[in-house]
Amino acid sequence: MDMQRINNVLDNSYNIGKAAIPEGEVASYIPELAKANKSDLGIALITRKLVPFSVGDCETRFTVQSISKVVSLCVALEEYGFSRVFCNVGMEPSGEAFNSIVELDLQSNKPFNPMINSGAIAIENMLLKRLGFDELVTITRKLCNDKDISLNNDVYLSEMSTASRNRAIAYLLDSKEIVKGDVEATIELYTKMCSLNVTAKSLANLGLTLALGGLNPYTGERLLKPETVKVVKTIMLTCGMYDGSGQFAVEVGLPTKSGVGGGLLSVVDKEMGIGIYGPSLDEKGNCVAGKAALKNISSELGLHLFYS
Amino acid sequence: MDMQRINNVLDNSYNIGKAAIPEGEVASYIPELAKANKSDLGIALITRKLVPFSVGDCETRFTVQSISKVVSLCVALEEYGFSRVFCNVGMEPSGEAFNSIVELDLQSNKPFNPMINSGAIAIENMLLKRLGFDELVTITRKLCNDKDISLNNDVYLSEMSTASRNRAIAYLLDSKEIVKGDVEATIELYTKMCSLNVTAKSLANLGLTLALGGLNPYTGERLLKPETVKVVKTIMLTCGMYDGSGQFAVEVGLPTKSGVGGGLLSVVDKEMGIGIYGPSLDEKGNCVAGKAALKNISSELGLHLFYS
Amino acid sequence: MDMQRINNVLDNSYNIGKAAIPEGEVASYIPELAKANKSDLGIALITRKLVPFSVGDCETRFTVQSISKVVSLCVALEEYGFSRVFCNVGMEPSGEAFNSIVELDLQSNKPFNPMINSGAIAIENMLLKRLGFDELVTITRKLCNDKDISLNNDVYLSEMSTASRNRAIAYLLDSKEIVKGDVEATIELYTKMCSLNVTAKSLANLGLTLALGGLNPYTGERLLKPETVKVVKTIMLTCGMYDGSGQFAVEVGLPTKSGVGGGLLSVVDKEMGIGIYGPSLDEKGNCVAGKAALKNISSELGLHLFYS
Amino acid sequence: MDMQRINNVLDNSYNIGKAAIPEGEVASYIPELAKANKSDLGIALITRKLVPFSVGDCETRFTVQSISKVVSLCVALEEYGFSRVFCNVGMEPSGEAFNSIVELDLQSNKPFNPMINSGAIAIENMLLKRLGFDELVTITRKLCNDKDISLNNDVYLSEMSTASRNRAIAYLLDSKEIVKGDVEATIELYTKMCSLNVTAKSLANLGLTLALGGLNPYTGERLLKPETVKVVKTIMLTCGMYDGSGQFAVEVGLPTKSGVGGGLLSVVDKEMGIGIYGPSLDEKGNCVAGKAALKNISSELGLHLFYS
Repeated sequence: MDMQRINNVLDNSYNIGKAAIPEGEVASYIPELAKANKSDLGIALITRKLVPFSVGDCETRFTVQSISKVVSLCVALEEYGFSRVFCNVGMEPSGEAFNSIVELDLQSNKPFNPMINSGAIAIENMLLKRLGFDELVTITRKLCNDKDISLNNDVYLSEMSTASRNRAIAYLLDSKEIVKGDVEATIELYTKMCSLNVTAKSLANLGLTLALGGLNPYTGERLLKPETVKVVKTIMLTCGMYDGSGQFAVEVGLPTKSGVGGGLLSVVDKEMGIGIYGPSLDEKGNCVAGKAALKNISSELGLHLFYS
Repeated sequence: MDMQRINNVLDNSYNIGKAAIPEGEVASYIPELAKANKSDLGIALITRKLVPFSVGDCETRFTVQSISKVVSLCVALEEYGFSRVFCNVGMEPSGEAFNSIVELDLQSNKPFNPMINSGAIAIENMLLKRLGFDELVTITRKLCNDKDISLNNDVYLSEMSTASRNRAIAYLLDSKEIVKGDVEATIELYTKMCSLNVTAKSLANLGLTLALGGLNPYTGERLLKPETVKVVKTIMLTCGMYDGSGQFAVEVGLPTKSGVGGGLLSVVDKEMGIGIYGPSLDEKGNCVAGKAALKNISSELGLHLFYS
Repeated sequence: MDMQRINNVLDNSYNIGKAAIPEGEVASYIPELAKANKSDLGIALITRKLVPFSVGDCETRFTVQSISKVVSLCVALEEYGFSRVFCNVGMEPSGEAFNSIVELDLQSNKPFNPMINSGAIAIENMLLKRLGFDELVTITRKLCNDKDISLNNDVYLSEMSTASRNRAIAYLLDSKEIVKGDVEATIELYTKMCSLNVTAKSLANLGLTLALGGLNPYTGERLLKPETVKVVKTIMLTCGMYDGSGQFAVEVGLPTKSGVGGGLLSVVDKEMGIGIYGPSLDEKGNCVAGKAALKNISSELGLHLFYS
Repeated sequence: MDMQRINNVLDNSYNIGKAAIPEGEVASYIPELAKANKSDLGIALITRKLVPFSVGDCETRFTVQSISKVVSLCVALEEYGFSRVFCNVGMEPSGEAFNSIVELDLQSNKPFNPMINSGAIAIENMLLKRLGFDELVTITRKLCNDKDISLNNDVYLSEMSTASRNRAIAYLLDSKEIVKGDVEATIELYTKMCSLNVTAKSLANLGLTLALGGLNPYTGERLLKPETVKVVKTIMLTCGMYDGSGQFAVEVGLPTKSGVGGGLLSVVDKEMGIGIYGPSLDEKGNCVAGKAALKNISSELGLHLFYS
């Protein structure tokens, strides 16, 4: 693709994103997150030829939040394999909000999917029996090609002090024997993974790694199995934007995961990784500026999965 | 009422209750409770004239379980008054099982009523800010006229080790600011209150105290305000038998509370207290023998609220 | 009871009711009902000695709406007996709004109780296989001692044109084989029964008939079996005020049924019947003025079921 | 792709599908559907180069059932455009069964998506204001390149006589003003569209038309706008297999729609159309043999959306 064309589209998309910021709000339920600068916006894009593009606040650190669910699912699939992971969590979009307890209690014996809190908590419970947090940080740094990723301790402590709802989910899973003991340690690991500091660039690198089926884009080293990445991209597509996933798939058509820290991780399969930072969120917890920008990028560059 | 008549009715009702035992099962989800003798049945009745009747296993100790919700509600009303209590918990039957989380999460910001786990956990959280467990034991002994009531430590430990679902409820309430901190202490107090050892006779005494509007039947001492007792009896009538409360009110017509330890506490207003022990439970957690026996007692002695 | 005392209490209660009117709204979802005069209030009371009391708009005709569910349940119990009726409908409070479909679809194979739309539709389907509408009008007139009760055709037509939700309920019941064919005829009968014109006085007479266990208060003729009346009064107590039934039972303690036409039918067992008209409704569909007035009447005259 | 390779894969997949048949059951809730031959299986595949492949019962007529939802959505998008269609129906997977009423009533004012009954009923209500059934048949024939498609009257009558649940949904939508009048005509049109007779070959042709972005594969005529087809394929991917859509997307990775008549319509974007007939269904209503066969076809030929 023509570099100038991409630059132009990114600039336009940045402006479109900026204009959408007032429609959203910075997450307020975690005190530390409320301190984010609502007007920030950064878009980083990197092609498989390793041409980097960026506009706006692409070096700003922010916490990865739910985007860590992608990393955790990757690691769980590598460690335990498909069958054992999906014995504890489903693959279905839930039609409900990210922190819903209802569906879990009412309709099923396992969380709907690994992209909502209940599913990710089940995954963290599996992970902590095999890996320590430090190992997970190392893996995250590799997948994002960003050695500066580290714990944001202020956010971590702030989230732990407001984690009642996640504890409720974890104990409910414990009562269903999906979480198997270590409830408090599970919540700690889950919250630490959410509290890792990344940048839009880190996420663009992660996206490219997934676009390339698990190969390090810089070294060619295999970081993840193709099967793992296939599964993760599909689940990002169907479940990555909470209960707005269906509309996002129709309108943008790229596997994408959002986090309430303002991040968006997006994959243009076999082609590009895109990372966005913008802390103004819609009512479903997705970055408003990023959604608007990605819709334009996808449309202008013809990136929709079913573009024709 | 004629003493011989009551004796005959109790004997018949005991036999009817015995015959119903095979329809139920002893509670199995708490290991210690599973040790109960399924064929046990005891019915104790005491009139306002202090004439005691009893048939079967009326001295057998068993844990009070959910019937402690009646005591806790009484104490909370005395300590905090009507408005403050019902600011944290509703008065509506829920149409759901005793340990449901769904309605709580979906439809309301507070538990439906104080007779289900979520409501009682909210009440215990209020109580622990004012009273210690020892004080609550003392009050329970007084209300039951039974100085031997004490903690069944085996049951307590067994329940604490299987309390995940109650912890889930408590943390969910914490996230809604209905429970205000001290989650673990709340669960401890809730579980200790459930683990008090009583007998059918203790419950008959408690029933008579409620029938008399809060007066100690033996000394005439006022233990509870009339207003407290009026509220508690009404809620027992509409919510005391979990999601079988409506049918029980129609068929038996007496304010009654069940516990999964096998107890039934029943009030014949202004006239009698009835306590029953029978650990074989129906699928809603209510004593099968006791239900059958009470239905016969109510019918034969004309005790239904709307008897005519 | 002292007549002067009752007169004074009614006058006070009327004023308390009047003051509550602004808190509610006239039902607007049925165009004809929206025409009611929001400030109307009438309270009629009649004792078993046949002493009538009344204050305000006690002769004003209004449509009985859901209070007809009481009449229909009485007739169904007389025609089919307890077992066959409760094979098609439950006896449990639902914890949900009067026109909810959710609980019906999700949790059960039959409507929760006969006081909500789904339950009453099931009852009407049974009735139409035995009786015509004219016979039901005749029975209603007798039970209310009011020969002038007749169909309000304007309301009937208005309701039939906005009956989509009730049709949805009826077809869902048909798919569950609770309603057995004749869906449209069932909706017609249901809606006609709701559209009968009564007065506060009619309802007071009906209340007294129920208070007396089914005897015509004027002639002593047995209109309903004692067993029928016992069941109906219990269900009115636990389910008569929709999802506000529990709180109403606690605060007022009288079997009562409301209708969105503004009516309240209340029973002081063995003593009195009370009928109220006031079209300003709370968000649950219960007459606000009537609720406030009844609470005061019950409290001042000591009528609560568990008064002591 | 190599023809011999495709032939071999289809033969293997046919055998794998055959072996899965006993895991399912023929739909029994519609009497006429219950007459299907459970052991039937046909797989038709056609490439963009118009090379046709087929194995088994590819000429057997069966009713299209829910696969007609794809045609109806296409026509609605062409007639009304994106905004007006999605004003009446959402784009989100529901996490619930195909005929659920709960989510509709509880959580939203419009059906979750056009691939479940409620959403399709909303679409048919829009269509009937613009087109007759005959026009829709003509369009269906064109899209399937099958002039023999016609109404199976026996199935149609059988379904109309058991359509209570769909009528319930339609009236509920009418009460929410999503369906706007003509409820019975809407149910008729919906049921007629479900009762069209197709073959596995018809569906393969339809799949190829969608794969080619709306062009008639034989004539090059534009039958549908690219934008319409993009939207429809995305929704088939996220919602096409009812509450098994997420797992199917992960495991097979092709936009696919199932019908309880036993059909599967599958799209290999830009490459192929696949049609399958096999009336043995899993508990979610999806063809068991077809699912197993498609999984193998996708895996062996590398057709998964995120294959790498």
